[in-house]
Amino acid sequence: MPEKRYLMTPGPTPVPPQVLAAMAEPMIHHRAADFRKHYGECLARLKQVARTESDVLLFTASGTGAFESAVVNLCAPGERVVAITAGSFGDRWVKLAQAFGADVVPIRYAWGETPNPDDLRAKLAEIGGAPVAFVVQSETSTGVVSDVEAFAKVARAAGTTLVVDAVSSLGAVPLEMDAWGVDVVVSGSQKALMTPPGLGLVAVSRNAFEHAARVKQPRFYWDWEKTRAAQAKVDAPFTPAVSLVIGMNVALGLILEEGLENAFARHVKLGRACRAGIKAMGLELFSPDEDRSAVVTAVKSPAGIDSGELVKVLRDRYGVTIAGGQGDLKGKIFRVGHIGWFDLFDITTALTAIEIALVELGADVVRGAAVGAAVTAFQAA
Amino acid sequence: MPEKRYLMTPGPTPVPPQVLAAMAEPMIHHRAADFRKHYGECLARLKQVARTESDVLLFTASGTGAFESAVVNLCAPGERVVAITAGSFGDRWVKLAQAFGADVVPIRYAWGETPNPDDLRAKLAEIGGAPVAFVVQSETSTGVVSDVEAFAKVARAAGTTLVVDAVSSLGAVPLEMDAWGVDVVVSGSQKALMTPPGLGLVAVSRNAFEHAARVKQPRFYWDWEKTRAAQAKVDAPFTPAVSLVIGMNVALGLILEEGLENAFARHVKLGRACRAGIKAMGLELFSPDEDRSAVVTAVKSPAGIDSGELVKVLRDRYGVTIAGGQGDLKGKIFRVGHIGWFDLFDITTALTAIEIALVELGADVVRGAAVGAAVTAFQAA
Repeated sequence: MPEKRYLMTPGPTPVPPQVLAAMAEPMIHHRAADFRKHYGECLARLKQVARTESDVLLFTASGTGAFESAVVNLCAPGERVVAITAGSFGDRWVKLAQAFGADVVPIRYAWGETPNPDDLRAKLAEIGGAPVAFVVQSETSTGVVSDVEAFAKVARAAGTTLVVDAVSSLGAVPLEMDAWGVDVVVSGSQKALMTPPGLGLVAVSRNAFEHAARVKQPRFYWDWEKTRAAQAKVDAPFTPAVSLVIGMNVALGLILEEGLENAFARHVKLGRACRAGIKAMGLELFSPDEDRSAVVTAVKSPAGIDSGELVKVLRDRYGVTIAGGQGDLKGKIFRVGHIGWFDLFDITTALTAIEIALVELGADVVRGAAVGAAVTAFQAA
Repeated sequence: MPEKRYLMTPGPTPVPPQVLAAMAEPMIHHRAADFRKHYGECLARLKQVARTESDVLLFTASGTGAFESAVVNLCAPGERVVAITAGSFGDRWVKLAQAFGADVVPIRYAWGETPNPDDLRAKLAEIGGAPVAFVVQSETSTGVVSDVEAFAKVARAAGTTLVVDAVSSLGAVPLEMDAWGVDVVVSGSQKALMTPPGLGLVAVSRNAFEHAARVKQPRFYWDWEKTRAAQAKVDAPFTPAVSLVIGMNVALGLILEEGLENAFARHVKLGRACRAGIKAMGLELFSPDEDRSAVVTAVKSPAGIDSGELVKVLRDRYGVTIAGGQGDLKGKIFRVGHIGWFDLFDITTALTAIEIALVELGADVVRGAAVGAAVTAFQAA
C-alpha cells in the first residue's frame, strides 16, 4: 500500500486539496485580468483575517523576509529597538535588527516562559522609550502564545510602534489588529493560512506607514510604499508567486467560510485535546497548560528518551512528522503542531502514534488513555 | 466549451503538467528526508543548468529579490558600479543599486539597441575600473540578447566582478558560467525553468564569494554566506517554498533530459520561426533579426494600431496572452515570448492569432503567409 503521511509539525502545515488543486491550474499572467481577480480578492481577504482596514502587503518571501521588511522600513541605523524574546524566533529578530544597525535592547526570557507586558512597560520607562518594539505572538519553538493585546496597550501608551510576529498564529488565535491598536503584523502563508510556504505578508497601520516614511534605511524589494502603491492598483512591484497567491486565496476563502471565531475556537479545542492526551499518557507539558496554547503543543521528552529519536521513529516507521526541540531544547522536547487544517482525528492520530513510538523506545507511558482523554477534552463545552 | 488559454508572454511562462502535478502533492516538511531528496537534487541540477561547479543559491523571492542579493552582497555604499542598460530591467538594476548607496555609472543605450562590450572596456578604462558591473543577458522588455561571453572577458581583464541578469535567459540561450568566467548569474523559476514564479536563484563563483566577504552592507535574508552554509547541509536558512522547489526539480529534470544544447537549439529555431512568420505578415521586427534573439520576439505595431489594443483583443476574444511594450515603447511594440515549454505549434498559434486580431483591428497585413513561413524557417537546417 502506498504509505500514508501525516504532517504534524508547526509549519509547513497540511494544505487542503482544494488549495493544491487551484495551484495545479495552468499558469496565467500576473498582469492579466484573470489573475488580478484572484489577487484583489486575496488582498481583501487578508485584511479580514488580520482584522484591519489597513493594507496587508504581500511579498514573495518566507516569513523571515516579511519580518526583514518591517526592520528595514521601521528601524533607522543606530536607533533603539526593544525586542522581546523567549525562544528561537525572538532571537532571530534580535539578530535581524542588529544586522541592520539597530541598537537592540532585548528583553530576554528563558525559552518556554511567557513574556510579561509589564516588563516592556518597565524597560521602555528605564531607557526613555524606543521608536520600535518587537514581540512574537506564537513562539513556535516553545508553544508559548503572548498576550498581544496587552503588549499593544503598553506600546501605544509609550508611543512605540509595535511589530508582532504572527507567522504561526494569524488565523489560529485572535489578533485584532485595529481593535487592539497593533501597528504591524507579520505572517506567512504556510501555517494557519493553509498554503505552501513562499508568501510573506505584513499588515501595516497608517501610523506605521508614516513611521516608515521618516526612516532612512536602504530598501528596494522590501519597500512598503512601493508595494502599497502597486497593490492600490491590484498590481505587484515584482512578479508575484502566481500559483501561491491563487492557492492562498482559496485557503482564505475556506477560513472565512468557517468563520474566524470558529477557527479560533477550533484551535482552542485542538490544543485542549492534545494537552489532555499528553497528560493522560503521563507526560509533562513544556508549553503552558492554558487555552492560549492553541498553536503548538510542546512536551518534555520522558526520562532517558532523546526527543530526536522519537521524531525519527515516528517519521521513518509510521509516516508521522512532528518536530523536535531547537537550540538548548534539542533532544529535550518534542512539538506537535495543530495549526490550520487540523481536526480532532489529527490529534488522536498524533497521540496514538506518539504513544506507540514511545513504548517502542522503552519509555514508561500510560497506555490506552490518551485518545479517550483527548476526545473528552475536545467535546467539553 | 471551456475556453482554451494560451500563455505567450515573456514570463511567467507555461508550466508542464508534470511540474504542476508534483506541486499538487500533499505538503511535506522542509527539514525531513523526503524533502531534502528533492532539494539536494534541485540544487545539483541548477549547477548543471548554469554550467558551473560553484554553488547556486536559492531564495524564496522574485528574480528582483535574487538580484537584490547580488547588490547587497557585492556593493559597498559609495563604491562604484557600472550598470549596462538598454531596457526596463537594466534600468531597474540602476535604481536598485542606487537604493543601496552604490555610485552607479550607467552605460545607457536606447531601448532595443544591443549593448557593446567595447563600451564597457572603454568606460572601465575611463573611470579607472570598478569593483562590480551589471549586464542583462536577455532584456525582456526589448527582446535583445547581449553577448555575455564578451562582457565577461572585458570584466575579467579589468578585475571587475560581473553580475549577469539571466532571469529570462537561463536555460534558453547559452550561458557557460565557468567556461566564460562569469562571476554571478541571477535567474528565476518562472521563465525557461518552466516553474511558477517564486524562486530566485543566484549562481556565485568563488571569486564572488570572496568579494562578498569583503563588502560591508547590512544583509540577513539575502546573505549569501548564510545561504551557502545551509545549502552545504542540504538545508535552507529560512523555510523554503517547498512546493515550488519540488516543481522546479521536476522541471530541471525535463530540461536536462532534453539536453541543454537541444534546448538552446530549439529556442533558436523557435525564434527563427517567429521572426519569419512576423516578416511574412509584412510586419517589422523590433528585436534584432538574429539567432541570439531566441527568447522574446518584439514587433513594431503596424501603423495606426496601438499594441495595447492588440494585446487586449487577443486576450479577451481569443484567450491568447502576449505582452505589450513597456515605458516609452508602450502602445508601440508587442512581444511574443517563446521561453521554456514551447514548440513550433505554439509559435504558429501565436502567429495565427496575431494575424486574425490585426485584421480585425484594420491593420494592413499579408494574410495566410505567416504560418508557412514559420514552418519553413523552423525546419531549415
